[in-house]
Amino acid sequence: MTRPQVVIIGSGFGGLFAAQALADAPVDVTLVSRTVSHLFQPLLYQVATGILSTGEIAPATRDILRKQANATVLLAEVNRINLASRVVVAEKLAKTIALKYDYLIVAAGAGQSYFGNDQFATFAPGMKTIDDALELRARIFGSLEMAELSEDAEERQRLLTFVIVGAGPTGVEMAGQIAELTQHTLRRSFRRIDTRDAKVLLLDGMDVVLPPFGAKLSAAAKTELERNGVEVRLGALVTDVDATGLEVKDKDGSTERIAASCKIWAAGVQASPLGRTLAEQSGAELDRAGRIMVNPDLTLPGHPEVFVVGDMISLDKLPGVAQVAIQGGRYAASKIRGELTGHPVTASFAYHDKGSMAVISRYGAVAKVGKLELSGFPAWFAWLFVHLIYVVGFKNRVTTLLHWLITFVGRARSERVTTEQQLVGRLAVKQLGEDFQPTIAGTLNPGKIKH
Amino acid sequence: MTRPQVVIIGSGFGGLFAAQALADAPVDVTLVSRTVSHLFQPLLYQVATGILSTGEIAPATRDILRKQANATVLLAEVNRINLASRVVVAEKLAKTIALKYDYLIVAAGAGQSYFGNDQFATFAPGMKTIDDALELRARIFGSLEMAELSEDAEERQRLLTFVIVGAGPTGVEMAGQIAELTQHTLRRSFRRIDTRDAKVLLLDGMDVVLPPFGAKLSAAAKTELERNGVEVRLGALVTDVDATGLEVKDKDGSTERIAASCKIWAAGVQASPLGRTLAEQSGAELDRAGRIMVNPDLTLPGHPEVFVVGDMISLDKLPGVAQVAIQGGRYAASKIRGELTGHPVTASFAYHDKGSMAVISRYGAVAKVGKLELSGFPAWFAWLFVHLIYVVGFKNRVTTLLHWLITFVGRARSERVTTEQQLVGRLAVKQLGEDFQPTIAGTLNPGKIKH
Repeated sequence: MTRPQVVIIGSGFGGLFAAQALADAPVDVTLVSRTVSHLFQPLLYQVATGILSTGEIAPATRDILRKQANATVLLAEVNRINLASRVVVAEKLAKTIALKYDYLIVAAGAGQSYFGNDQFATFAPGMKTIDDALELRARIFGSLEMAELSEDAEERQRLLTFVIVGAGPTGVEMAGQIAELTQHTLRRSFRRIDTRDAKVLLLDGMDVVLPPFGAKLSAAAKTELERNGVEVRLGALVTDVDATGLEVKDKDGSTERIAASCKIWAAGVQASPLGRTLAEQSGAELDRAGRIMVNPDLTLPGHPEVFVVGDMISLDKLPGVAQVAIQGGRYAASKIRGELTGHPVTASFAYHDKGSMAVISRYGAVAKVGKLELSGFPAWFAWLFVHLIYVVGFKNRVTTLLHWLITFVGRARSERVTTEQQLVGRLAVKQLGEDFQPTIAGTLNPGKIKH
Repeated sequence: MTRPQVVIIGSGFGGLFAAQALADAPVDVTLVSRTVSHLFQPLLYQVATGILSTGEIAPATRDILRKQANATVLLAEVNRINLASRVVVAEKLAKTIALKYDYLIVAAGAGQSYFGNDQFATFAPGMKTIDDALELRARIFGSLEMAELSEDAEERQRLLTFVIVGAGPTGVEMAGQIAELTQHTLRRSFRRIDTRDAKVLLLDGMDVVLPPFGAKLSAAAKTELERNGVEVRLGALVTDVDATGLEVKDKDGSTERIAASCKIWAAGVQASPLGRTLAEQSGAELDRAGRIMVNPDLTLPGHPEVFVVGDMISLDKLPGVAQVAIQGGRYAASKIRGELTGHPVTASFAYHDKGSMAVISRYGAVAKVGKLELSGFPAWFAWLFVHLIYVVGFKNRVTTLLHWLITFVGRARSERVTTEQQLVGRLAVKQLGEDFQPTIAGTLNPGKIKH
């Protein structure tokens, strides 16, 4: 007798936690993902800024589920879902597989949104994947390397200007880390530039940083960012991005061009295109970010066998955070298990807000848990504690803690490797522009030591 | 008064140790390298097989030299040396720099040699750079992922066949690790394949593995490899390599085609092309591997101000190992310091062989130190100790030891991340072939669990 087949799309928080919650259910689980890893996205910025290794935030999904006998992990990208015949079609390297399901959990997440300006992506990568983080690592450290080679003051300033678009947690954390790198960590590693001349600019179209944290914490975060050397510019819309800079429109309608080699986009999200597929077949509605308006039990309208969880859903204005995905994945699993074991779950999905936090600087953070608002060191310590718990696996917890010791106490960055491929192949064209020309014709004075 | 300028080309063992040995010399040191890191090449295979992170074996060179006030590190690739005018010209991302030197230390190392068959490189990457290691990581783990998707027995066997060409230390260590991965580590992580069906084939044209270790240890290494599931095939020349396999010619003249998706080339080295530049201008001779026949004091004939160290030299049949480069770099530095401080070094370069070791399996290695020959656990323990000492930096030592604990005791691999770029962009075309076609038309049975 074959057991009911549960297919899960995605290995992020929603997909992984759903799979784990089905460990003891009388089903076979197949988790299909286009990446081999479960990505701990909230720490992606630490890979980009040289604190953590890729393995620490992205353990192999099949490793995590190794001991769960009813779970199979497949590396393939789902490109078709047929709700009528209950089949998912996925592909990898020209190999196509079809998976029949009795239950489907769609947890394919969201990508970066450039609000209709996808051409910006080339010059201002987002922060959604391991590829993004390594690309940004190459751009951040690579800009400093190129500045060290430059003899042209204007070019050097452009190479030393870092612009982060979007003042949500990702943008704030990136800005904080780049300021820490240039103001402190790397200060004595260069000879021909003073990395403290770097300008770290955090832009947002809204009037506050970290809006969901409330007025008090937002103000505290802004003050702490500025104290650490981040220039915060609010009410500023980005109207154009290219290889050598970007154009910003302020509230008063005035525009300004900012010369900057390294741009980072952390401004918006767009749900997986699988949302559109589901909507078209089920008649469900999509919001502007491509998220599906699901039923209160996270099912697709008209399809009680199809659950959608995490960043792909539009329900009760739930935010696109890890906890919504985790709790959604577990809820979907409990519904399936309940149905099969004769104990149906009748309650709607209820999200329990466990709070949010964002790191601003070394030993500084903001945290909001219910009515409790923390900032400074207490918030930072809470962040450390919570994140260590959520890093997957005991082994990763140990090496992550070590890398954090190295970074927070020792102020060093030990994971800074960029590949030639990233540095030369991509940085050259995308960051510096195709018209980038040699600026040093003469002979460098190699002994010009500043420190 | 400007101090004498020492330019060092390369951030490998030769270049880095030369720079460090000049810390107290009355000179300005400029180290120019085309990579941002000092690569600990002997552990590259551990990055490829998921044991170590890139940061652990490739710390940023400018970090290592941060406190050495007389040293400047520049990221640029040297493409011209003018011995007459004593100028080195380097380039990065279309930016050109020229460096005048009073002393030059050329430590640009060696790349992989395909003995005139450079087209093999696409299908069988070498093991010389971080890019190589990450590319191979994607190919090794990616082959297993694709095998898990495959429903075609012949294709699956091709995806499960790993061929390592060259039975020197790198080839032996790679073969041993892939066997460990497939025989033990990953066994329970897959559901549709049994990774123990994988075939790990170590090929060499010579008649023994690890020839420099002597007959007894070579035999011990071969036995240990075979005991761990590596098929060792000696006296076998590779005559062709393509996307889906390779052609091997045995001693008796017979040829055989072996179907294998993942091929690794660890068979030969070719000195940096800078050797040819130096030879053409100085009249020095090159050997077949492009190495320069230097004077007994490591200087270029006719140029007492130019030293060549490490893998680029041909002198007294010295091997291309880390210790030759380290000692050569230090010797060159002592010559320069001696000349400037009135205590000239007159002795020729004398290499002190500190021994060699190669890891064969978990807890198994061979080591030769002078007349002392060790194999099995004692050799492995010696390897552990020596390598921990040579891993650069206390912090890397701690995390490396932890990753080794995870791997050797826990039998896990925590650094397995491959980027989409590596997996899709490169694996597809280069490993599976452009004519790779979908082989699964029907519906996979997701519940087919083998273990």
